[in-house]
Amino acid sequence: MLTVKTPDEAFSLIKQEFTHGCLPKEYVPLKEACGRVLSADILADSYVPDFDRSTVDGYAVSASDTFGCSDSIPSILRMDGEILMGTDAGILLQPGHCAYIPTGGALPRGADAVVMIEYTEDYHDGTIGIQKPVAPGSNLIYRGDDVCPGKTVLKRGRRLTPQDIGALAAMGIVSVPVRKKPVVGILSTGDELTDITETPGPGQVRDVNSPMLAAAVAQWGGIPRTYGIIRDDESLLRQAVSLASRECDVILLSGGSSVGEKDVSCRIIQSLGSLLLHGIAMKPGKPTIIGKISEKPVIGLPGHPAAAFFVSRLFVRKILLQLAGCDEEDRAVPAVLSQTVESNHGRAQYVSVFLERRDGILYANPIRSKSGLITSLAGTGGYFCIPRDCEGISRGETVMVTCSG
Amino acid sequence: MLTVKTPDEAFSLIKQEFTHGCLPKEYVPLKEACGRVLSADILADSYVPDFDRSTVDGYAVSASDTFGCSDSIPSILRMDGEILMGTDAGILLQPGHCAYIPTGGALPRGADAVVMIEYTEDYHDGTIGIQKPVAPGSNLIYRGDDVCPGKTVLKRGRRLTPQDIGALAAMGIVSVPVRKKPVVGILSTGDELTDITETPGPGQVRDVNSPMLAAAVAQWGGIPRTYGIIRDDESLLRQAVSLASRECDVILLSGGSSVGEKDVSCRIIQSLGSLLLHGIAMKPGKPTIIGKISEKPVIGLPGHPAAAFFVSRLFVRKILLQLAGCDEEDRAVPAVLSQTVESNHGRAQYVSVFLERRDGILYANPIRSKSGLITSLAGTGGYFCIPRDCEGISRGETVMVTCSG
Repeated sequence: MLTVKTPDEAFSLIKQEFTHGCLPKEYVPLKEACGRVLSADILADSYVPDFDRSTVDGYAVSASDTFGCSDSIPSILRMDGEILMGTDAGILLQPGHCAYIPTGGALPRGADAVVMIEYTEDYHDGTIGIQKPVAPGSNLIYRGDDVCPGKTVLKRGRRLTPQDIGALAAMGIVSVPVRKKPVVGILSTGDELTDITETPGPGQVRDVNSPMLAAAVAQWGGIPRTYGIIRDDESLLRQAVSLASRECDVILLSGGSSVGEKDVSCRIIQSLGSLLLHGIAMKPGKPTIIGKISEKPVIGLPGHPAAAFFVSRLFVRKILLQLAGCDEEDRAVPAVLSQTVESNHGRAQYVSVFLERRDGILYANPIRSKSGLITSLAGTGGYFCIPRDCEGISRGETVMVTCSG
Repeated sequence: MLTVKTPDEAFSLIKQEFTHGCLPKEYVPLKEACGRVLSADILADSYVPDFDRSTVDGYAVSASDTFGCSDSIPSILRMDGEILMGTDAGILLQPGHCAYIPTGGALPRGADAVVMIEYTEDYHDGTIGIQKPVAPGSNLIYRGDDVCPGKTVLKRGRRLTPQDIGALAAMGIVSVPVRKKPVVGILSTGDELTDITETPGPGQVRDVNSPMLAAAVAQWGGIPRTYGIIRDDESLLRQAVSLASRECDVILLSGGSSVGEKDVSCRIIQSLGSLLLHGIAMKPGKPTIIGKISEKPVIGLPGHPAAAFFVSRLFVRKILLQLAGCDEEDRAVPAVLSQTVESNHGRAQYVSVFLERRDGILYANPIRSKSGLITSLAGTGGYFCIPRDCEGISRGETVMVTCSG
């Protein structure tokens, strides 16, 4: 007998039952890699930079030639010419000499520092006055200062950001090892559902969950595959789930919020695979099912769109991260609760909010609607959680809002 | 003479000079709309729900028939059958009668409340015992409870989330008015640059900025168009900028970190359009240029990738939001600084960090590297700002980290 689990127990179960990083590897071109999850550590294979570089516009010098100089008593150095960008310095600097060097230019041999141009004066007679002493290494980055061969630059499991793309580009990595995107099958069930392009007849509602979940899956790095609306017929649903379990990496069943319909979903999962969890002690979202068919996660979501969204945001997203081997966690922002929210039902309660800044303060305005379809979805900016042992949170208290989406 | 501006002055200038929401409108299918910016308010055009619905599994009743009932003295009601999902209720409930109704079912005429099945007993003789009184309206959402025709559901300028897609689906909006994505031209300049597929020769470095900025632009909702590496030649660069200003909505010039090269960029922008700003008092990122050519923003970025990233994250992203008419703001998360960072140069300083949770506490580990290419990019999770009038932030203090990317 499966008992209702807390959200934390459900997270542990996901960690236990589905293999971390089990999605196959593939290589993608660098320009398609942003947002993808690395399947292998990235090690540097060369020195970056590959030569000693100036970090300023100025004069390459031997630092000892500048010791003791000042505005009033500059060191006078002989000017040996200019280092050109993108070329080997090609000069061997003698003591008492200097060479103009632009930002990023290669330090000539014989030099060990750069003086910023602001502290120099060109006398236009082939000599330069240095007005400020520099220590060896000043205004320089040395070969390998940034990375040396063998250093781990990015770790397996990281979701690549634009800056990471920059780092990969710097190392000349043009083909990037990543996890394949999981294909997520989305099945909506319910006789009351019509396609969103149709006008609902009496007693009917549009299938909100399919397009909403497809958008969410894409945002979380998956490839949504929708299977349309399946009538409340156990054998039809079984066929569809069986097909989806062959074609997809993850299956989402949405709808069937009544007890009888949930039982049907459970029976189907049990007959094709195994049931791991039936019910999560949270509000909204209690009638959630997690199972697996051929090691693939199958999640039965509540029929109500706002509840289906919460359960997906928390658990489906976690499953997608787990399969990709990605351990990134949610980031929550502090906001002041603008209205008291009560909670006294012994379950963790997730409250949708819209975020609004007034007079420089970020407020979380809780969205309350009975079981409204649209007002509990449209314009929401995030959510916070009231733990099960808490009776509510008062207006004016700070809550940590996880931005949804 | 253009003076150096503070970051806040630069933001004001962007607001002033570039028209809010000037990108053309287009309609996209609902399934491509997530992440896009609405170009018009979305109003409800019908009642949602379109009929009175039950929010639970139970019995539709006339509330007055339940008054005074209890566990020990239930109200006995005659059972008139079952409301089927997705159909008109079709029943006219008489006083003293009830009908089974599933979650989401349409309330039959004559009923004004639903009793949860948990508080009922089926006597299997055509009667049902009701053990708990309900008030009129209990466990119901009325027609239009969620939205009524004419209500603004989503506002122009909003970036659509998966939940918004759900709300649009609920209203049957399958074609969504959004702003066109801006095409952002990316030009890298510098004789020292090689394509990332090439092995840099002596004194050369790979063009990191083009792929990094392209990834960032795509993440911020733009369409990157890269123009490759342009040699340090004023007339070549002028031609390229002129071409890009015809083909793109925004132009990014990256590289040219030396004073001379910046002067070239300024001259080109002035000759083709006008220069608005030359220098932002921030670190990194001081040598930033903002101008416009035919009303299109042109931004001259520092050559150093980490600096180019910061300037883009702050100002290019802001410009893209401005053109799309989107006012969303950054969300920052609190984190404990793990090392003291000093700042005493009178400029706002932006510090890259990687975020790490230890013992439940989120730490911001500042990334310090001279002008390292890779270590200042790879693996960074966000940044915080030390204001210009602050001499630094001590280890253990809480900083607000804006997640980059």
